[in-house]
Amino acid sequence: MTDAHTMQEVQVVTGSNPGQDMYKWACDLFPVCRSLTGDGVRTTLDYLGNVMGGLGLHEIPSGAACFDWNVPDEWNIRSAFVMDENGNKVIDFARNNLHVVGYSEPVDVTLSLDELQQHLHSLEEQPDAIPYVTSYYRRTWGFCLSHNERMALRPGNYRVVIDSTLAPGFMTYGDVVIPGRSEKTVLLTSYVCHPSMANNELSGPVLLAALARLLRSRENRLTYRLILVPETIGTIYYLSRHLEELKRTVIAGFVLSCVGDDRDYSYLPSRRGNTLADRVLRHVLDAYHPGYSRYTFLDRASDERQYNSPGVDLPVIPFARSLYRRYPEYHTSLDDLSVISPEGLQHSFETMLRCIDIMEGNQTYKCNCLCEPQLGKRGLYPTTSVKNGYGDAVRITIDSLAYCDGQTDVLGIAEAIGIPADRCIPIMERLAQGGVLSCVTD
Amino acid sequence: MTDAHTMQEVQVVTGSNPGQDMYKWACDLFPVCRSLTGDGVRTTLDYLGNVMGGLGLHEIPSGAACFDWNVPDEWNIRSAFVMDENGNKVIDFARNNLHVVGYSEPVDVTLSLDELQQHLHSLEEQPDAIPYVTSYYRRTWGFCLSHNERMALRPGNYRVVIDSTLAPGFMTYGDVVIPGRSEKTVLLTSYVCHPSMANNELSGPVLLAALARLLRSRENRLTYRLILVPETIGTIYYLSRHLEELKRTVIAGFVLSCVGDDRDYSYLPSRRGNTLADRVLRHVLDAYHPGYSRYTFLDRASDERQYNSPGVDLPVIPFARSLYRRYPEYHTSLDDLSVISPEGLQHSFETMLRCIDIMEGNQTYKCNCLCEPQLGKRGLYPTTSVKNGYGDAVRITIDSLAYCDGQTDVLGIAEAIGIPADRCIPIMERLAQGGVLSCVTD
Amino acid sequence: MTDAHTMQEVQVVTGSNPGQDMYKWACDLFPVCRSLTGDGVRTTLDYLGNVMGGLGLHEIPSGAACFDWNVPDEWNIRSAFVMDENGNKVIDFARNNLHVVGYSEPVDVTLSLDELQQHLHSLEEQPDAIPYVTSYYRRTWGFCLSHNERMALRPGNYRVVIDSTLAPGFMTYGDVVIPGRSEKTVLLTSYVCHPSMANNELSGPVLLAALARLLRSRENRLTYRLILVPETIGTIYYLSRHLEELKRTVIAGFVLSCVGDDRDYSYLPSRRGNTLADRVLRHVLDAYHPGYSRYTFLDRASDERQYNSPGVDLPVIPFARSLYRRYPEYHTSLDDLSVISPEGLQHSFETMLRCIDIMEGNQTYKCNCLCEPQLGKRGLYPTTSVKNGYGDAVRITIDSLAYCDGQTDVLGIAEAIGIPADRCIPIMERLAQGGVLSCVTD
Repeated sequence: MTDAHTMQEVQVVTGSNPGQDMYKWACDLFPVCRSLTGDGVRTTLDYLGNVMGGLGLHEIPSGAACFDWNVPDEWNIRSAFVMDENGNKVIDFARNNLHVVGYSEPVDVTLSLDELQQHLHSLEEQPDAIPYVTSYYRRTWGFCLSHNERMALRPGNYRVVIDSTLAPGFMTYGDVVIPGRSEKTVLLTSYVCHPSMANNELSGPVLLAALARLLRSRENRLTYRLILVPETIGTIYYLSRHLEELKRTVIAGFVLSCVGDDRDYSYLPSRRGNTLADRVLRHVLDAYHPGYSRYTFLDRASDERQYNSPGVDLPVIPFARSLYRRYPEYHTSLDDLSVISPEGLQHSFETMLRCIDIMEGNQTYKCNCLCEPQLGKRGLYPTTSVKNGYGDAVRITIDSLAYCDGQTDVLGIAEAIGIPADRCIPIMERLAQGGVLSCVTD
Repeated sequence: MTDAHTMQEVQVVTGSNPGQDMYKWACDLFPVCRSLTGDGVRTTLDYLGNVMGGLGLHEIPSGAACFDWNVPDEWNIRSAFVMDENGNKVIDFARNNLHVVGYSEPVDVTLSLDELQQHLHSLEEQPDAIPYVTSYYRRTWGFCLSHNERMALRPGNYRVVIDSTLAPGFMTYGDVVIPGRSEKTVLLTSYVCHPSMANNELSGPVLLAALARLLRSRENRLTYRLILVPETIGTIYYLSRHLEELKRTVIAGFVLSCVGDDRDYSYLPSRRGNTLADRVLRHVLDAYHPGYSRYTFLDRASDERQYNSPGVDLPVIPFARSLYRRYPEYHTSLDDLSVISPEGLQHSFETMLRCIDIMEGNQTYKCNCLCEPQLGKRGLYPTTSVKNGYGDAVRITIDSLAYCDGQTDVLGIAEAIGIPADRCIPIMERLAQGGVLSCVTD
Repeated sequence: MTDAHTMQEVQVVTGSNPGQDMYKWACDLFPVCRSLTGDGVRTTLDYLGNVMGGLGLHEIPSGAACFDWNVPDEWNIRSAFVMDENGNKVIDFARNNLHVVGYSEPVDVTLSLDELQQHLHSLEEQPDAIPYVTSYYRRTWGFCLSHNERMALRPGNYRVVIDSTLAPGFMTYGDVVIPGRSEKTVLLTSYVCHPSMANNELSGPVLLAALARLLRSRENRLTYRLILVPETIGTIYYLSRHLEELKRTVIAGFVLSCVGDDRDYSYLPSRRGNTLADRVLRHVLDAYHPGYSRYTFLDRASDERQYNSPGVDLPVIPFARSLYRRYPEYHTSLDDLSVISPEGLQHSFETMLRCIDIMEGNQTYKCNCLCEPQLGKRGLYPTTSVKNGYGDAVRITIDSLAYCDGQTDVLGIAEAIGIPADRCIPIMERLAQGGVLSCVTD
C-alpha cells in the first residue's frame, strides 16, 4: 500500500517574513571588511547579536594555543591603494575590500610594474572578477584586481600603500546556547571571516541569526548551540575549549554556508555517513527537494573538516544550496548581493526549520501492548470492513505501530514506511497522548 | 563451476491425490456461513478435525481479555431477507450468505428505499459481485448485493428481516500439535471466519488439513503446531495465551491463505526480513517458481500483522499464490469454487511440503577433520585426474564441505553454492552417515 | 575533488632482470619428471633452493598420517614405452614424460590393441595434445598420447613396458622463513608435482624463487614463509604440522600458479572474501590492471582449497594470470615453454611485489592531535589561499589524515579516498616521521 501513502507536504511555520529580514541584514553587513580577526568581525558580531536577541562575545589573545595551532595576530586595515605616476589610484581598497590580500602587512613603497606584478592576483578565466585571496600564516602583502584591470596597467612606477596593522591582539567570536527541555543539542555554526561576499559567507550568518530569533521565541525540546567564528582557526579554538561538552551533548550539527541563492540544495555526508545530521537532511531533501546534489565526504572544505576529524567525530555536516567551489561567483567579487535573494534565504530558512522540527519530534516510541492495539475502540479504525482496506491515515498508523519497538526512532519509521517524518510525528504524538505508545527516548 | 551445477528438480512425495481431497473438502464447506464466532465456525472445525485426524477445539467466553482486545459476542444467523411490496424477496440470505453484513443485529422493520439504501453495500466497479462486508465492533445491520441488483430496486417500502442473535457466548478455535523429535516448531495457521468464499479463505484451511494428515502419517524431526482461528481476534487471543511457548519453540511459521488458484506465488517478508520462514520460502520460490511476486512488509494484511508486531516478533509470513487484495475476485461472491481447482491446491501443497522438507533437513554440520576429507578412499572422488575436473556431484560435495563450519545451515550452504537445498540435503546426510560430518544443530 | 586525484602509477623496483632469470630456471627445470614424490621433486627443489639462496628440505615417510590423509608411496620412473610388432616405440616416455600416467605401476606385458586401449588417454577435442593424467590413490598404469597418434595405432600386439617403482619411501618438500621485524607473516606457496608443463606449474615455483631472492636481499617489516610442496597432500601435510603457528602469524597468503603467460590476471576470493590477501590483490588489480577476471570461491581448485577449509581458515588465495582450467593449453603437452615468457614472468613478479610492498607499508596510523594538524607550519600547505583549493598532494594528505583514526589501515584509507595505496604510503610515512602521525599497528 506504500503507493497509496499520500506524499502531501507538511507546511513549516516560519513566522513573519524572515527572508526579507535576512536579506536586509546581509545588505547592512556587506560593506564591512571582515577577516580572521579585527574590528570588522566585531562589528559583524555586534550587529548579528543585536538582531538575534543576544550573543556572547569572546576575545582570545593572539598566540593562544589550541590543539596543533595558535591564534594568529590581529589584523586591521584602514586604507590601501596603488597609485600610478599621474596620481590616479588604479586600485583602491575604498572601492572594494577584496582588493587587498587578507592579512597584508603594512607597506609604503614605489615599485616598477614588473615588481608590482609579483604582488598582484587576478583570474584569467573570469576577467571581470576580483578574486578573494588571503595569506594568514605567511607574512606578505598583495592586491587583487580583475584581469581586465590588470591588463590595462601600463609600465611605469607605482606607489603602493597599505595602511594596516598586523600585531598581537585578539580573535573574536560569538556563541549562544538556547536551552531546551533536554540537554541534547543541535549545533548550528557559521563563519564571519570573509569580506564583501554575499552567498559565501553572509548568507550563513544571517540564516543562523534568523533561526536563533525563532528558536528563542518558542519552547523547544532540544537545546540549540549557535556559533559564529572565523573559519578553521575559530572552530579549532572552539573545539579545543568545548570538546568534552560537545561530545556529550551534540546529536546533530550543521555548518550554514552558501544558503542565499536559488540553486539546488547540496548534501555532503559526514565521515561516518549516517549520523542524525546526515539522516535528517537526506530525509528532508529526499522528501521535499529531491533534485539536490550529492557529494562525498572527500568534497568537504569548510568547518566540517574539523568536526569530522578523528577523535573529534561530531555529527556535523554542511547545510548549503550550491556548495562552496561549485558555483561560478564563489570567492570573487561576483558573489555580491545579486547572488542572494529574500526568496532564496526564506527557502533555506524553511528547509533548515523543517530539519529542526523533525529532530524536535524524532522520539523513540514503544507500543504499550503486545499485538496490534485495537484502534477501533479509540476511533482510529473504520468500523465497517471493505474490500479495499482502509485509508491512508489508518495505514500510516498501522505501519508506524509495527515499528514502535522501542528502538527505532521516528525518522527510522518514516524511512521504513516511505513517508515524510513530519507526517508521521503528529500521528505518533496523538497515539502517545492516547496511551497507545510510550516515549522511550532516553 | 557453478554454471555446471545441474538445477535438476527434486521431486516431492505427496502421497495419493491430496489436490482432489482438498477440493472436495472445500466444496463441502463452501455453503457454511462462517464468521468470527458462531455455529458456522464449529461446523467447519468439526469437519476439518475429522479429515485431518483430530483437532483440539476451544471455546472462549465473550468478553475474555487478550492484550488490548476482548473477545466479541457470539453471532448466529438463521435467515434474513429484504421483501418488496409485492412479497418478493429481493435480497435473501438463503441464496448467498454474503448478502448479510457480518455481525448484523436482528432487525424487523419496514423502510422506504431511501432509508434502506443507508444499509446497502455494493461495488460500482464490479457490478455483478456481491461484496463481503462485516461490522464486528460497531453494532449495526446491513445487506450486500450486486450493484446491478441494487440499481434495479424501485422506490417503495421494503420489509427488512434479519433473524440473528448477537449476544454473549463463545469464540471457537482449533489447534493441534504434531510432535517431532525436536521441540523446534513450524507453525501453520489459517483462518475460518469467512462465509462462502473459496480462495480466501477456504483454500487455506483445507491445505492446512491436508498437510496435517500427511505430517501425522510420518516421522518428523520438527514439531508442527497447526492453528485454525478466526482472523485477528483469534490470533491475538491465541498469542495472549501461548506467547512464551511460541517464542521458545517456533522457528518458522506460515499463514496459509489464497492458495487454491493457479496464479503466481507471492512472497511477503517478515518485519525482520531474514527469518527462517523468509529464507526457506524465498529459496524454494527462487529455485522452483522464479516468476513469483515480491511484496514488502507494508503490504501485509492478515494474521502476520500480529505475529510480526513488536515484542511478539515471531518468524511468520504469508504463504499465498495471488496475495489477498491483489486478485479481482477477492472479498466478493466471485471468489467461488471456480477460482480454485484440485491442481492449484495440489501445487500449493507440493510447494509448502517442499519448504517443510527443506526445514526438516536444514541441519548444521561440522566437518570432522581439518582440511578437505579424503573423498577418494570413501568412493566419493574420481580416482583418475582428468583435464576438466570432476563431475557435478563431486563438485557439490566439495563445495558443501567447504561451508561445513558448524555455523552455516544447509540452506545457507545451498545459497552459497547456488543449488536447491533439497539437492544438498541427501549429500550432507550421506556424508554424516559416513562419519565425514557431525550434525551440530542444537 | 576525487576526480582530481592523479592516478599516476607508482613504479616497483625489482632489481636486475628477474624475468630473464625466471625464464632460464623454467627452461632448466622443464625436462624433469616431477610427481607427488620421487627424485624429480628432489632435483627440482635442489635447483630452486640453490637459485633462491637456501631452502629447507624435508623427507616425510610414506604412510605418515596427516588429518584425514596418509602420505602415499614414493614413485620413481626410469623408462616406459609401447612397442609395436615391428619394434617401433610408438609411445616413448623418453620423448615426453607426460606419456605415462602419473604413479603408474611397473608393467611388462604384451597386449592386443583392444586391450591396450583400456590404458590409453587422449583428448578428442585437442587432437595434437598429450593430456596430463595421474592416478595417485588407485594402483593402475596407463599411457597418454595425442588423439592423432592414438588414431594411427594399427591392430596388432604391443609390448608395454613401464620401468617404475611405487613403494614405501618419502615425500619431499621445501620451505624457508625470511624473518622480518614483525612475526606477522606473508605466506607464498607453489607446487612442484607436475611433469613437463610450463605455466602450470613451473611459472609458480620460479616466481616464488625470484621473490625469495629479492626478499632476502633487503630488510622487511613482515616475515615471509615460502613453501614448495606437492599439491594437496603436501599442503595438507604442511598444515597438519604447522597449523597453530600459521594461524598465529599469517596475515595473507598466495598460491602462485599460472603466472608466466601474458594474459589478464585473475582474482578468486577466499571463503570469507575480505581477508588482507583479498583486499591487497583486489586493490592492486583495480588500480593497475583493471581488466582482470573475477571468479568466485566456487571456482577454486588448488591449494587454496585446503587453506580455506573450515577450521583452517587461513587468508590464502590464488595469484594467477589466466586461472587454471581456463586457458586452452592447461594440463596438456601444449603448456610448454612457448606459453610463458620472460616478459610475462617479469610482469607477474612486479605485480606480486607491488602487493608485498603495499602490505609492508600497510600500517595503521593515528593522528597525534585533535582537529586537522596545521600543515602550513610544516611546509605541507599552500600559504596563499586561492579560489580553486589546493593541489593534489595536499588533498591526498588532508584526506588521508581524515581517516587516521587508529583503526583504518592504509589500504582502507586508500580505498576510501580513491587512490593507489602505494601513493598513500610514502605520504603517511613522511607524516609519521614529522610527528604528525603515530603508527599504532599492533
